[in-house]
Amino acid sequence: MAKLLLGKEVNASLNERVRSKAARLREAGITPTLAILRVGERPDDLAYEKGARKRHEALGIDCRSVVLPAEARQEELLAAVEELNRDASVHGVLMLRPLPAHIDERLVCGALRAEKDVDGQTEASMAGVFTGSGVGFAPCTAQACMEILAHYGIDCAGRRAVVVGRSLIVGKPAAMLLLQKNATVTVCHTRTADLVEVTRQADILLVAAGRAGVIGAEHVSEGQIVIDVGIHVGADGRLCGDVDFDAVSPVVEAITPVPGGVGSVTTSVLAEHVTEAALRMYRDRQSRIYIRQETF
Amino acid sequence: MAKLLLGKEVNASLNERVRSKAARLREAGITPTLAILRVGERPDDLAYEKGARKRHEALGIDCRSVVLPAEARQEELLAAVEELNRDASVHGVLMLRPLPAHIDERLVCGALRAEKDVDGQTEASMAGVFTGSGVGFAPCTAQACMEILAHYGIDCAGRRAVVVGRSLIVGKPAAMLLLQKNATVTVCHTRTADLVEVTRQADILLVAAGRAGVIGAEHVSEGQIVIDVGIHVGADGRLCGDVDFDAVSPVVEAITPVPGGVGSVTTSVLAEHVTEAALRMYRDRQSRIYIRQETF
Repeated sequence: MAKLLLGKEVNASLNERVRSKAARLREAGITPTLAILRVGERPDDLAYEKGARKRHEALGIDCRSVVLPAEARQEELLAAVEELNRDASVHGVLMLRPLPAHIDERLVCGALRAEKDVDGQTEASMAGVFTGSGVGFAPCTAQACMEILAHYGIDCAGRRAVVVGRSLIVGKPAAMLLLQKNATVTVCHTRTADLVEVTRQADILLVAAGRAGVIGAEHVSEGQIVIDVGIHVGADGRLCGDVDFDAVSPVVEAITPVPGGVGSVTTSVLAEHVTEAALRMYRDRQSRIYIRQETF
Repeated sequence: MAKLLLGKEVNASLNERVRSKAARLREAGITPTLAILRVGERPDDLAYEKGARKRHEALGIDCRSVVLPAEARQEELLAAVEELNRDASVHGVLMLRPLPAHIDERLVCGALRAEKDVDGQTEASMAGVFTGSGVGFAPCTAQACMEILAHYGIDCAGRRAVVVGRSLIVGKPAAMLLLQKNATVTVCHTRTADLVEVTRQADILLVAAGRAGVIGAEHVSEGQIVIDVGIHVGADGRLCGDVDFDAVSPVVEAITPVPGGVGSVTTSVLAEHVTEAALRMYRDRQSRIYIRQETF
C-alpha cells in the first residue's frame, strides 16, 4: 500500500515557516496583509473567504475583504484593483474567480501589480513562471504540488515527471516548476494518443486533468509518486480526485489522498506568498532608503 | 536515407505569404517597417543586419537601422526604444543581442511594446507564448521550427514531441508551440538522466541543446522527424548542428540539414512577424475608427 503524502503534514512545516516570517515582519512594524477581492455573494466565494481568513489570521496575517456588488461595472472593479495596487499596507491580493460574465477577467487580472499577485493570476506572474525570473508568484495550486514534493524530500532532478493537464492554473505552471527543479517533464492532455504508455514511464505523476478517475491502475507502475490535483464529488457523494485512489494506491510508492492532499495545502501556500510579498516589499523599501542615504 | 526538410522550400512558400501581405498593406497606404536597434559595430551584428535588410526589402518590407555607439548609456537606449514604441510608422523592432555588458538587457527588452516585439524578446511575448493568448510574437527560431513542420504537412496532434534544451529563445517556447499544436511534449536538458531512452520515443525530435553533435545514432529511431536548431563550426571548419547528421540521417524519416535548415528560415519568420504586426496595428486602428464612428 502506498505511503500517503498528507497535506496536514506539509502544512505543519509550511505554516511554521509562515508564522515565523509573519512574526519577524510584525517586529519590523509591518503587518502582512492579504486583500480578498470579491464580486457578489456566491456561496463558494463566501466559504472560501471565511476559511482563508481564519487560516491567515491564525498565522499572523491580516485579511481584508474588498467586496463589490454582483452588478459592479468593470471600471469600478478596475478602480478597486488600482486602489489595492497603491495601498502600501496591502501585500497580496487574491481575486475570487470566476468574475461575473460581464467583466473582462483578463483585463482586470492584468491590472494587478505582479508584486501583489500572490496566486499567479497576472500575465506578469505567468511570464515569471515561464522564464523563472522570480517576478510575481506561481499559482498556489501548482506551488502546493511542489511543496508536497519538497516536504517529503522527493528530489525531482533528472527524474521523469509527467503532468496530465495543461491548464494555466495547474498543468502548465506545474510543468515549469518541475522543469526548474531539473525534472525531465512531459505534458499530456486530452489529445495525447498513448496516455497509459506515457504515464507509466513517470517517476513523478502529477494529475491535473479536471476529470474524476481518469487515472486508473493501468496508468501507473511501481515506485511512482502520484500527486492528485483533482477534486470532485463522486457518484457516491464522497469527494474524490482525478486518480482512482483505490485502484492506484496499491500499485504506487506514494500518493496524495483526496481530500487531505494538494487542496489542503493551497491556502498555506497563499499565506506563504503573502508573507514573501511583504518581505520583498520591505527589502525593496529598505534598499531604496539605503540608496537614498548613499546618494545624499 | 532521410528526407531533407529544406529551409529554402519552406522559405519559398513563407515568403510568398509575406510578399502578398506586404503588398496588400502597401495598397492600404502602409509600408510594413522593421527597425533594427543596434548598439556598437560588432561584425556579427553588421552581417546579420545586412542580410536581414536585403531579405526584408526583397519582400516589400522597409528596414530602418537605429544605431547607438557601443558606449551608449542605458538611458539613451531606453529613450531609443521609447521613440520606436511611439513611432507609428515602425511595426516591428529587433534588438540585436547580446547588448553590451553595462546594459540591463532585461530592462531594455521589457521596455519594448509587445505589439512590436517581433522576436519574442519581451516578458509580455513570453507570457503570450506560455498562455497562448496571442499577445506579442514567439521567438523567430522557435517559430521557424513550427513553420518547417507545417510546410511539410507534419501533424503534431497526439504525437510525442521531445524537445532537447530549455532556453527561453528556443527550447521552452518551442515546447509551448508544440503543445498548442496538441503534441504530447517532453522537455529534456543537461540534467536528464536517460536522454537516449527519452529521445528514442519521440515522433518529432527538436534539438536545441546548443552543443555540437549531442544527438547521435543511439538517440534516434526509425520514422522520426528531426529538427536540428543548433549551428556550430565543426573541428573540420564546416558548419554543423546539434545532431550528428551523418550518423542520424540514415536512421530517421526526415531531418533538417545544417546549414540550410532551421537557421535559414528564421529571417523569413521575422519578416512574417513584421507584416503580421503591421496588419494587427492596421486592423486595430480600423476598428477604433469604426467604434468612433458608431459612437458619434
